[in-house]
Amino acid sequence: MKLITFNAVGVSRIGAVTNENIVDLHAAFEALLDSQGKIRAKQIAEAFVPSDMTGFLQGGKESMEYAKEAIKFACENNEYKGRKLVFAKNDVKVEAPVPQPGKMICVGHNYREHILEMKRELPEFPVIFAKFANTVIGPEDDIPFFPISEQLDYEAEFAFVIGKRARNVSRAEALDYVAGYTIVNDVTYRDIQRRTLQWLQGKTVEGSAPMGPWLVTTDELTNPSGLEMVLTVNGEERQRTNTANLVFDVPYLVEFLSNLMTLEPGDVILTGTPGGVGFAMEPQVFLKDGDIVRIEIDKIGVLENKVKKVAVEVKC
Amino acid sequence: MKLITFNAVGVSRIGAVTNENIVDLHAAFEALLDSQGKIRAKQIAEAFVPSDMTGFLQGGKESMEYAKEAIKFACENNEYKGRKLVFAKNDVKVEAPVPQPGKMICVGHNYREHILEMKRELPEFPVIFAKFANTVIGPEDDIPFFPISEQLDYEAEFAFVIGKRARNVSRAEALDYVAGYTIVNDVTYRDIQRRTLQWLQGKTVEGSAPMGPWLVTTDELTNPSGLEMVLTVNGEERQRTNTANLVFDVPYLVEFLSNLMTLEPGDVILTGTPGGVGFAMEPQVFLKDGDIVRIEIDKIGVLENKVKKVAVEVKC
Repeated sequence: MKLITFNAVGVSRIGAVTNENIVDLHAAFEALLDSQGKIRAKQIAEAFVPSDMTGFLQGGKESMEYAKEAIKFACENNEYKGRKLVFAKNDVKVEAPVPQPGKMICVGHNYREHILEMKRELPEFPVIFAKFANTVIGPEDDIPFFPISEQLDYEAEFAFVIGKRARNVSRAEALDYVAGYTIVNDVTYRDIQRRTLQWLQGKTVEGSAPMGPWLVTTDELTNPSGLEMVLTVNGEERQRTNTANLVFDVPYLVEFLSNLMTLEPGDVILTGTPGGVGFAMEPQVFLKDGDIVRIEIDKIGVLENKVKKVAVEVKC
Repeated sequence: MKLITFNAVGVSRIGAVTNENIVDLHAAFEALLDSQGKIRAKQIAEAFVPSDMTGFLQGGKESMEYAKEAIKFACENNEYKGRKLVFAKNDVKVEAPVPQPGKMICVGHNYREHILEMKRELPEFPVIFAKFANTVIGPEDDIPFFPISEQLDYEAEFAFVIGKRARNVSRAEALDYVAGYTIVNDVTYRDIQRRTLQWLQGKTVEGSAPMGPWLVTTDELTNPSGLEMVLTVNGEERQRTNTANLVFDVPYLVEFLSNLMTLEPGDVILTGTPGGVGFAMEPQVFLKDGDIVRIEIDKIGVLENKVKKVAVEVKC
């Protein structure tokens, strides 16, 4: 499945993408239950297929199965008792698939060529750092460029989302704890990142994590390795790699991170960026107002956002 | 007020400490409304004084005022229609005041003597890093010592909690955005912290942020400077400083952080630790099973936790 969060008439809810349409999963599951004569349809749907992604992922494989039944029902019944179950993609706003991750854990220095261009050595352990949930924006949002720096930079990243509570999980079992995969642009204010020892301040600026366009579940995308990833700015290729080049791959990261802490459904892990960031170009090139940053990953899709300079706020 | 989160008969809720008693704020406010003949008492109480700290803080000064009315009512009516409004402190478990902060932002290198003992220079900008919410434990919990390191260390920290959404707030207005103050032990796995460039992995290990015992609101503790802080291990003094020695103080940090991102009610900011950590002693001394770590801060109180070695999990 391709799971998305979408907004129609001001309400956010989760959906599944079917061709050019989107099934409202919560509404469809409630309708299915109602059609089966369940008087508690509303409450059961709320329990198993709620309208928010984190709640839905907490339901695990059981909820995934219910979602599939809901999709089948909605494809046969686009409407139920006057309520729309299916929306045309063009009629809705697509939001970040996981708009409020409990944790966003980022891996640094995880592609050989990027490590070398940043003039660092191959690491023995993954370097991890954080972004907070305030950074998340959707695939149809602009990347806000706040007037606090001149060095706005992109970082194409292949990301995975946890689907089952994970603690001390082995590499062999790791993929069972992953709900699916998506794309994140780890937008970075380079000078702010580098003005102290710790990167957080340049990484967690408001709106600096465009995510999407959707979450491709592990039953559809069974192997996270071997996926080509390309980033362009205004059509010019800047980054290209393949997830086969990750130093620390998805199973390794699940084991490593779950050895330190409990990973929860809806946690998002960004696996790192390859070579080609603007900071490492000669001469350096940073993002500017109006630039279009486009990331494409095989079997996932395209995440494209425009950079938009934010005017200095004048306070009265 | 001293706001706490407490658990009685398996249910967590927020309370206010009055001498040796704790007022259940949500229950008391609902009782007060009911006594005024409000038929929607339950819903109004849920809206303005819910049972969770983050929800309550989102209500801002309005909810704080309602809480005070609730306390007054509960002191006159320890019970209302058979429901207990006041609990003896000994009958409940005190939990972390903010059990699920949306963000935990930590400041490193913020006391002159600690900067010097770690052999670093005084910073031009605050160094900030993250802990995730999975680290939070309460004042009556043990600090779990997982068998992943031999270098468990303490860090006494004065912490403040955001009480009002803050973005681009000036130093002059900053304290208006603070709900109150508490104590956090920024427990650190030193070798894990230092094995890569970024500290996150040694900072966000499960259970590594004992917090409490309560949140002292800004109407009671009006000046966050000039507070003496002492940390002892098994009664032996290891850290002592005064919040007057902070390089970057609370108003500065609110301005600095809110210039990068939106701070939300319930976000917790740890202001950094002074000299005297075990890692910097000669010879180095780390925490071990059974050690009692006690942090006292003037006008706040005492946070005391025991270290408890966690056995290696045997999986079948």
